[in-house]
Amino acid sequence: MDKATFQPLSGFRDLRGPAKDRLIEALRQIFQSFGFEALETPALERQELLLTKYGDEAQKQLYLFEDNGKRPVGLRFDLTVPLARFVAANYADLTLPFKRFEIGPSWRAERPQKGRYRQFTQADIDIVGTDSVSAEQELLEVITAFQKATELPLVVQLNDRRIVGAMLEKMAIRESKKLLQLLDKKDKLPAEKMTTDLGSLGLSDHQRRQVTSIFLNDGDSLETVEHFLGSTPELTQLQNLLTAANKIGLTAVFVPSMVRGLDYYTGTIIECVVKDSPVGAVIAGGRYDSLVADFIGQKLPAIGISFGVDRLLAAMETPEVTAPADIFLVHLPENSAEVQEFARQLRSNGHMVELYLDPTVEMGKQIKYAAKKGYASIYLPLEAEWSKGLLVRRDLDTGRQTELKHDDFLKMKTDG
Amino acid sequence: MDKATFQPLSGFRDLRGPAKDRLIEALRQIFQSFGFEALETPALERQELLLTKYGDEAQKQLYLFEDNGKRPVGLRFDLTVPLARFVAANYADLTLPFKRFEIGPSWRAERPQKGRYRQFTQADIDIVGTDSVSAEQELLEVITAFQKATELPLVVQLNDRRIVGAMLEKMAIRESKKLLQLLDKKDKLPAEKMTTDLGSLGLSDHQRRQVTSIFLNDGDSLETVEHFLGSTPELTQLQNLLTAANKIGLTAVFVPSMVRGLDYYTGTIIECVVKDSPVGAVIAGGRYDSLVADFIGQKLPAIGISFGVDRLLAAMETPEVTAPADIFLVHLPENSAEVQEFARQLRSNGHMVELYLDPTVEMGKQIKYAAKKGYASIYLPLEAEWSKGLLVRRDLDTGRQTELKHDDFLKMKTDG
Repeated sequence: MDKATFQPLSGFRDLRGPAKDRLIEALRQIFQSFGFEALETPALERQELLLTKYGDEAQKQLYLFEDNGKRPVGLRFDLTVPLARFVAANYADLTLPFKRFEIGPSWRAERPQKGRYRQFTQADIDIVGTDSVSAEQELLEVITAFQKATELPLVVQLNDRRIVGAMLEKMAIRESKKLLQLLDKKDKLPAEKMTTDLGSLGLSDHQRRQVTSIFLNDGDSLETVEHFLGSTPELTQLQNLLTAANKIGLTAVFVPSMVRGLDYYTGTIIECVVKDSPVGAVIAGGRYDSLVADFIGQKLPAIGISFGVDRLLAAMETPEVTAPADIFLVHLPENSAEVQEFARQLRSNGHMVELYLDPTVEMGKQIKYAAKKGYASIYLPLEAEWSKGLLVRRDLDTGRQTELKHDDFLKMKTDG
Repeated sequence: MDKATFQPLSGFRDLRGPAKDRLIEALRQIFQSFGFEALETPALERQELLLTKYGDEAQKQLYLFEDNGKRPVGLRFDLTVPLARFVAANYADLTLPFKRFEIGPSWRAERPQKGRYRQFTQADIDIVGTDSVSAEQELLEVITAFQKATELPLVVQLNDRRIVGAMLEKMAIRESKKLLQLLDKKDKLPAEKMTTDLGSLGLSDHQRRQVTSIFLNDGDSLETVEHFLGSTPELTQLQNLLTAANKIGLTAVFVPSMVRGLDYYTGTIIECVVKDSPVGAVIAGGRYDSLVADFIGQKLPAIGISFGVDRLLAAMETPEVTAPADIFLVHLPENSAEVQEFARQLRSNGHMVELYLDPTVEMGKQIKYAAKKGYASIYLPLEAEWSKGLLVRRDLDTGRQTELKHDDFLKMKTDG
């Protein structure tokens, strides 16, 4: 096989290092601290289900195939439709509102681009079974807790599909689908392309001016929209949410052109970006009051947000690849068994200890290995000192050596 | 859609509750405590790669399909072939021995049976780039650490493909493939079926008696094999490994019929079962000195083991589904903002706090919800007490109420 065969498939990647696990663990702890319950659904779902709810654009990106029993299946596209399926299957046994989190991969056959992968990890929280705005508020609380834990400066963009709908109605725009798809791409398209594409939608001059003034001008636009629509319950609710969000430490803004691509949203929609980062939405979601309801044939409102783990990693300052453990122990034949026991004790005290594997490898080679792997210092159990209860620490940069007592070393605290 | 549509696909499952995440986190911490580095590879790989190394039996269980660009791809079958691919792609930059762990799902279109799923999670550690038996020893160390952390009573079964090979050669059995496949199923087949199948392999009476005596009789068989083969370096190494394993607290035994199904193993093979559990191998692996070597066209020995997360969960006593948080707070309109702030403080102190979402829902309904979700007690911020700095705790079984000071409550330690 030639070398290219060993690269991951186009749009996929191999990821080294502890950053992703750490982020996932932080998210899990936050979700659990609010009483969200863990759920794991399978990667494969019935095509029948996957083809229902995402809309045309998304459908083209599905990985669909037949399994060995000729069943039409596909890789999940997100964690929301699997949740809706789970709720439909277990509706009778669930205590509502049902609050669950799921963290796992989904797949989209998108055109590969920087920072976007065909397999990506999302961390979702959803609340099924209440239309109370307290659900929206709890999601904002979770976002605050996440911002606090990670110190990522977030901007929370809020909108409401019902407000968008009311505006389009007022503008007498019937064929709104293409316009919404265009608005969804607003931040990705150059301004001229936007103008051209907008021109091709068959709107009147008046409609086009209205669309431009309401949807394409940034800034403090809640007043503009209120002026245009008059006061509505949805606008009042959105105003209250913005106030609540800002009160708990978030920077929240109303973005009337933020519409979210997926078809299943029905009310509040949320997107968070990182201040001054080119990465795009790192958290996104909204209300989807019909998705589960349509499955079970009765009213069942729901709302959820997705933390884009890969995007968050891209937006966070990723540390350089560092040594995989805290302590590197050289391994010598003369006291191998004792040093192995020593390493065992250090590990049960919570330390991360790499003991070089093969004691028959010469010391110089072991030290070179440690330096290459990024250890700043190493520990040498040189027999002369070891037999006196001492361990030699060598700083790899300066070569300076210090002696430590075994017992003091074992008592050393971990960072964790 | 009818109700069956909402069940997971046959052989797949929805999994609720925190047990799996906890097990994975424990494994990750153990792996990291030995200096294994995190690696995440994609779920999809090139068919070319997947079809290389697993052997005939396994190939039938692959999920293979064409992606939207007509590339032949498939879902990975384990985490070992993706590792070999990663090493082949990054060989020039890796510091050897390369020690990595990966925890993630793989897929096999097996016939569904109890405790076996078509999607399953494995936690793998591998050491690439050394043929020193110290690698085997480190894997045994990790197994000990895992046994200690989980208190699962493990039996470590050891064998060596080279010993199996030497025995077959001595028995003059040339067509060994079918025999090995049969031995691999030893624990799953009834004794009579074993005898019949063995009879169909075209062995001489003498060979069949030898196979039965060496491979099918349990018990202290290292002497039997040594008597049959004479002393060999492989037998000595295995004896040393058994001694080392038992010395560090494992129950390790030689099982000459344990051969492992996959084709790629070349030396030491390992399987761990849980004492008195019907679950089967929960940890398994071995040396595969040719897998990576064949990819890169030069010598590169490797060894690894897989912790079967789903099997381990099945073998562990799974706790009943419990409440998703430690503290359930009733939510009342009269002090909603204050209680939200109180919850926030509890969470930053490390507590898991479910505050009922909607304060307009009547208290009785909130309490019923808490009881259904498994909370043993709840906390009531009744205004009369709350305004005096008190919080009422109600035991849901007895109905007994006690009062706690807010400040004492906030100072309460978490378990974690």
